[in-house]
Amino acid sequence: MLGMMLDELRRRAPLIHNITNYVTAGDCANMLIACGASPIMADAEEEVAEITALCSGLNINMGTISQARIRSMFIAGKVSNELGHPVLLDPVGAGASRLRMDTAMKLLDEIRFTGIRGNVSEIRCLLQGGGKVSGVDASKDDSAREDYAEETARLAMSLSGMTGAVVAVTGAVDVIAYNGRWYAVHNGHPMMASVSGTGCQLSAMTTAFLAANPGSPLEAAAASVCAMGLAGEIARERLLEGEGNSSYRDHIIDAVFNMTGKTLDMGARYEVR
Amino acid sequence: MLGMMLDELRRRAPLIHNITNYVTAGDCANMLIACGASPIMADAEEEVAEITALCSGLNINMGTISQARIRSMFIAGKVSNELGHPVLLDPVGAGASRLRMDTAMKLLDEIRFTGIRGNVSEIRCLLQGGGKVSGVDASKDDSAREDYAEETARLAMSLSGMTGAVVAVTGAVDVIAYNGRWYAVHNGHPMMASVSGTGCQLSAMTTAFLAANPGSPLEAAAASVCAMGLAGEIARERLLEGEGNSSYRDHIIDAVFNMTGKTLDMGARYEVR
Amino acid sequence: MLGMMLDELRRRAPLIHNITNYVTAGDCANMLIACGASPIMADAEEEVAEITALCSGLNINMGTISQARIRSMFIAGKVSNELGHPVLLDPVGAGASRLRMDTAMKLLDEIRFTGIRGNVSEIRCLLQGGGKVSGVDASKDDSAREDYAEETARLAMSLSGMTGAVVAVTGAVDVIAYNGRWYAVHNGHPMMASVSGTGCQLSAMTTAFLAANPGSPLEAAAASVCAMGLAGEIARERLLEGEGNSSYRDHIIDAVFNMTGKTLDMGARYEVR
Repeated sequence: MLGMMLDELRRRAPLIHNITNYVTAGDCANMLIACGASPIMADAEEEVAEITALCSGLNINMGTISQARIRSMFIAGKVSNELGHPVLLDPVGAGASRLRMDTAMKLLDEIRFTGIRGNVSEIRCLLQGGGKVSGVDASKDDSAREDYAEETARLAMSLSGMTGAVVAVTGAVDVIAYNGRWYAVHNGHPMMASVSGTGCQLSAMTTAFLAANPGSPLEAAAASVCAMGLAGEIARERLLEGEGNSSYRDHIIDAVFNMTGKTLDMGARYEVR
Repeated sequence: MLGMMLDELRRRAPLIHNITNYVTAGDCANMLIACGASPIMADAEEEVAEITALCSGLNINMGTISQARIRSMFIAGKVSNELGHPVLLDPVGAGASRLRMDTAMKLLDEIRFTGIRGNVSEIRCLLQGGGKVSGVDASKDDSAREDYAEETARLAMSLSGMTGAVVAVTGAVDVIAYNGRWYAVHNGHPMMASVSGTGCQLSAMTTAFLAANPGSPLEAAAASVCAMGLAGEIARERLLEGEGNSSYRDHIIDAVFNMTGKTLDMGARYEVR
Repeated sequence: MLGMMLDELRRRAPLIHNITNYVTAGDCANMLIACGASPIMADAEEEVAEITALCSGLNINMGTISQARIRSMFIAGKVSNELGHPVLLDPVGAGASRLRMDTAMKLLDEIRFTGIRGNVSEIRCLLQGGGKVSGVDASKDDSAREDYAEETARLAMSLSGMTGAVVAVTGAVDVIAYNGRWYAVHNGHPMMASVSGTGCQLSAMTTAFLAANPGSPLEAAAASVCAMGLAGEIARERLLEGEGNSSYRDHIIDAVFNMTGKTLDMGARYEVR
């Protein structure tokens, strides 16, 4: 059933506006194309209102933020809200600085998000308005506990309730929560953590899934998370002797490029709670 | 004959100054090295006059523009004009916002361009001072018509006449026009549209071809367009089962890296009108 | 013995703060992961003090500098100095503009660097407070002379004496100097010059080696330079017919990803003087 979400994304080929960091922007652009969308990256405050109006969805990513980029996030977010376009927040390193924390809280306050995608540390930060986050990766001890999925779902459900957004939390098990229901996704491979920007890529792709499937935010986000995880598995199988994280990055994007609704349905491993 | 242009580029190894977007900057740098040039990316207004004076050509790309980057485009463009260095404009998404449209028109007004490279929507925008452009890709209906090449050549010829620049319009058929003559280039593969930044890469490489072959702007730009299209064909043949747009990106740059004047002459498919 | 430095880096997995250019930021992030570190790129002046305090090392790279990025370099550098974190300077294109030259000299004046990594032209610029540098690559004639290694060592030793930093100069032979001793490293492959950003990647990785091996700056930097050169050799052997500089980039990062202390010890080729 999630495969239909990908088929619809390829059929609609939404144009996605990204206000994102300069580290992973190129990979995000290629991932958006791989899944069937078209990317546009634009962050000048003089133009983001017009750009976002041309698009079908807006992806706001907090990596390498600056005051100029932050102003553009608010302008574009509000225009997208007025137009009813889906808006997704990736609160990269939300707890790593006061600037990021304040920006994330203010964004949640002033913009209505359709989706939020982060690791468990970042999601916890948004809920608590603070917390300890090392850099831009999840704290190690977060994923060790046995009740990890249930605890994560509780957090995601709370944030979803507070914001009205579908909340996707990626980790050892991925959790996607919305409106009292949640998916636990078991796709993925630990080696995905060795590629810079897989989280950013997933956020960009999830914005495209949400834009193409406006009536089904939970299923759309779950399909995106399954597609990314499945791509990580396929890419791992294709990894040759001597290849490492840089080739793996290419293989993951390639795997999304070659994925169909049918192969996604066959490979997706999840439970609905 | 176009192969000589590539041989000359490799012999002269020009240093090319790029004021460009942060999405595809890394790929543009590697493409410039692949074709035999050296890249330098610099956009601080305090230094662009000195940087561009060290170089043999200037590539101005309007992706992810900002007020600061725009100021640097004018400073570097004027210095390059004074020094007689070739300057190329890639009007990325010219019609997507008022800022881009105004910037493009003002650049055309104040800077003398040696080359302009865009898709047909962007070129039409420059001619009409406006128009409809979806994001940064060409509008679909533009390339469907039977008289596409002739109509495109008419546009390119007009813009060339107005600006004095060689104008390269990439699409289903690529058209390069200058001084009353034009090339129709039939190299290329539709899958090239699935790689973010092939247009930016072509603009960077075309700047290098123009810098290395100052007496022959039409042939230099045509050689660059043929080289890019041929690389897209070679890369498509090298694409393995399971590979997608991310590997294809690598294969395209690799194919330029391995191209010689001889293999370019053998593979180039074009007519001169 | 240098292999122990890599083992220690993988064991400690330091978080490295990068204030760097947007051209090679993605490759630097993946290279940091490949060698066992974690990357964070952040350059907003409002947050760099907090970010760098979370990290174990700071990599300052002068590519695509701007006034905003320069202010952040000083803020982060001073905080890192106060906290005793290693700080590395990559003076990209130091002689290419007055802005870069002034920035480099002022950084050397106000920040205490643990490491400096550049090509011989850049290092000479720092010593002379000026000089001729074409773009961001070393001047050709620098590496032709027979006494290249000795002459380079003399320069590196001078700069090390003046700054207290371990100085790594990459070229035909790589020289690493500190406290009256120096390493000549013979690893590497000429094709590495055809990949944009190998220097930036090495600087990022060297920061990680220094952070993980605080008691042994000379050996840590030498291990990093050997690892990069060895990766270039392994990658060159893995290069297939038809592959070029773009695939080579992936192979280099992949080779670091798969390197162990043992394989580094087996492949490192150097003399201690």
